[in-house]
Amino acid sequence: MSVSDPVENLKTLIRCPSVTPAEGGALSALEAMLSPLGFRVERMVATEPGMPDIENLYARLSTEGPHLMFAGHTDVVPVGDEASWSHPPFSAEIEDGEMFGRGAVDMKGGIACFVAAVARHIEEHGAPKGSISFLITGDEEGPAVNGTDKLLKWAAEKGERWDACLVGEPTNPDVLGDMIKIGRRGSVSGKVTVFGVQGHAAYPHLADNPVRGLLPLASALMDPPFDAGTPEFPASNLEVTSVDVGNPATNVIPAKAAFSFNIRFNDTWTAETVRAEILRRLDAAAAEDTLRPGRDPIRYEMVWAERPSHVFLTRNNALISSLSGAVEKVTGRTPQLSTTGGTSDARFIKDYCPVVEFGLVGQTMHMIDERVALADLETLTQIYGTFLSRWFGDATLP
Amino acid sequence: MSVSDPVENLKTLIRCPSVTPAEGGALSALEAMLSPLGFRVERMVATEPGMPDIENLYARLSTEGPHLMFAGHTDVVPVGDEASWSHPPFSAEIEDGEMFGRGAVDMKGGIACFVAAVARHIEEHGAPKGSISFLITGDEEGPAVNGTDKLLKWAAEKGERWDACLVGEPTNPDVLGDMIKIGRRGSVSGKVTVFGVQGHAAYPHLADNPVRGLLPLASALMDPPFDAGTPEFPASNLEVTSVDVGNPATNVIPAKAAFSFNIRFNDTWTAETVRAEILRRLDAAAAEDTLRPGRDPIRYEMVWAERPSHVFLTRNNALISSLSGAVEKVTGRTPQLSTTGGTSDARFIKDYCPVVEFGLVGQTMHMIDERVALADLETLTQIYGTFLSRWFGDATLP
Ligand SMILES: [Zn+2]
Ligand SMILES: [Zn+2]
Repeated sequence: MSVSDPVENLKTLIRCPSVTPAEGGALSALEAMLSPLGFRVERMVATEPGMPDIENLYARLSTEGPHLMFAGHTDVVPVGDEASWSHPPFSAEIEDGEMFGRGAVDMKGGIACFVAAVARHIEEHGAPKGSISFLITGDEEGPAVNGTDKLLKWAAEKGERWDACLVGEPTNPDVLGDMIKIGRRGSVSGKVTVFGVQGHAAYPHLADNPVRGLLPLASALMDPPFDAGTPEFPASNLEVTSVDVGNPATNVIPAKAAFSFNIRFNDTWTAETVRAEILRRLDAAAAEDTLRPGRDPIRYEMVWAERPSHVFLTRNNALISSLSGAVEKVTGRTPQLSTTGGTSDARFIKDYCPVVEFGLVGQTMHMIDERVALADLETLTQIYGTFLSRWFGDATLP
Repeated sequence: MSVSDPVENLKTLIRCPSVTPAEGGALSALEAMLSPLGFRVERMVATEPGMPDIENLYARLSTEGPHLMFAGHTDVVPVGDEASWSHPPFSAEIEDGEMFGRGAVDMKGGIACFVAAVARHIEEHGAPKGSISFLITGDEEGPAVNGTDKLLKWAAEKGERWDACLVGEPTNPDVLGDMIKIGRRGSVSGKVTVFGVQGHAAYPHLADNPVRGLLPLASALMDPPFDAGTPEFPASNLEVTSVDVGNPATNVIPAKAAFSFNIRFNDTWTAETVRAEILRRLDAAAAEDTLRPGRDPIRYEMVWAERPSHVFLTRNNALISSLSGAVEKVTGRTPQLSTTGGTSDARFIKDYCPVVEFGLVGQTMHMIDERVALADLETLTQIYGTFLSRWFGDATLP
């Protein structure tokens, strides 16, 4: 079976119902594509107490340097209301030049194209002048605890080292060739609980309303802005994503009040300094509030909601220019080098090697009728192939 | 059967399990006490679509003026965790000089004492120089829709007019004789919902976080104070009782955010003017916020939560001084003339005649092991009796 056609590769992958945490046959299908190309394929199951076991895959072609990694995931988000789909979400049906299916663009399509690009590269140029590896997780759309992070550690402990990485996530807002991601903002979430004294609304002197303390604390996190942005990044931005008291009784002053927030921060900060700044603002607002007449000191607790996502910015010219050049050569478009959007698994990879992201058009990702133009699959395969040639040429330069 | 012993009367009433909306036999027991004293007793069932029917009672002795009303309720709040009670909550058991039971102080105790006081008055002085009536509802602890409000209207439509009213709610914080209530603050509740545009926390420019608008609106209601208080009333006070977004996803900017508030206001205001002031503050805060750079106008909706409770203040000297004098004569204490605390059914009665409130010590009301000292029952009966003599004496003066 040839795997040089991305359309066939994607069809095979979409038909595996690999909704996180299910492997759904997707990694086995990928293994069956890579083994005949000469890849040494390893399957790694990651475990964590209280969480489902997750299957991951690592495959490497050759043992020589330089070493290029392609990273991604075969797990997909749930299909939502299946009846609303024009075609069954795991059927990979084609209509009017588009293939429908969950994961079509995020990101089984990217994997399908990279496999096809590698197959064509070998057919046309023989084995690459170095190593190519696939680092594919089944836990990107889930909590990402048993995915890329652990897979990288596991591989690195076995001695694996990489020189560069391309993540195949959908990065283009509108048209293939729009945008390469060369960095991502970091993300930190937290919850502030303000404690008061419950009481009857008619006897406020016997109570202490925690909402009174919540307002200045929440305001202090929202204003002033954390920074004005950098040449590569937009301004860091904090949103209060929820405020919750949950008191149904209009005549009762509640005992506590909480708000949650999320900040997306640029490389003006690290996760550590942005956390310190948040704590400083809370303390300052509480101290200032204490100076107002008749106020009880604000008693509050700050809990970080999850592991922070670290900010990263790739400045590796060989990687960026070979990818950017490939996009230009194939599409005629000069891709924007962007750092916008949410977090991605590249935040883990950046600790091991320079990393960039480029894939399909993201418009339908996570939606009903997720789909990809067959023409885009062919174009992306050509971009990946040109990138391979350029990078393995360029990377040997000083 | 004599009903001049408040202890026996209360025992009978407590043994009727009249948790709102159940009559539980309590009104029938009261009817059986009043009829032999010469009262003409009427039972009135109030109805409202979607709500349980409620039994109420109106009883009048004599048809002459002046006319004194005693008002109260036989319904009680739920018992809570029955296993935690030292004695079963409807058993009226006595231990160490105290009678235990739900409603012992709120306010079957008050009713038991007033019945006893009337019985003794008739025994000692013959029929009073005027009319005495009992206006007793079974819906004070519930929504109060089918209670005092409708019972008053029903009686007034039949031509009933009153010159003064004593409400027998527990008014004393610590010791019998502490406090008479001569007024109550009004209460208005509302909910403000701020509308935004939902979005991903990583793309804030595509969203509009409603929490940003919520903070200045909530702050505007809390500061500055509505007033500094009056000679008779404490300062009006607004509490934000809940804030609710209910967004569990830390990476999502919510579509709307809401807060609820309750204001207890003094006679500087009416329910209408305090509502107008709240609307004015919200509008002003929204307008001011619009002036800040980069802000979308705050879109919000204001909904009043329930019927307002109107403020009242009684200035009827004959009523206040005969009650206050009776308290001093029996207890040796000078009661404070207070307007503190929550709302009561007196807010309905004040539209028909001057009204004051005096009853037992409220410490255990609504709690596990609600109970009353037998000595207090005797003392309150004497206070009510002295009040009856004084009021029917004084009320004939110009
Ligand atoms: Zn993805
Ligand atoms: Zn009561």
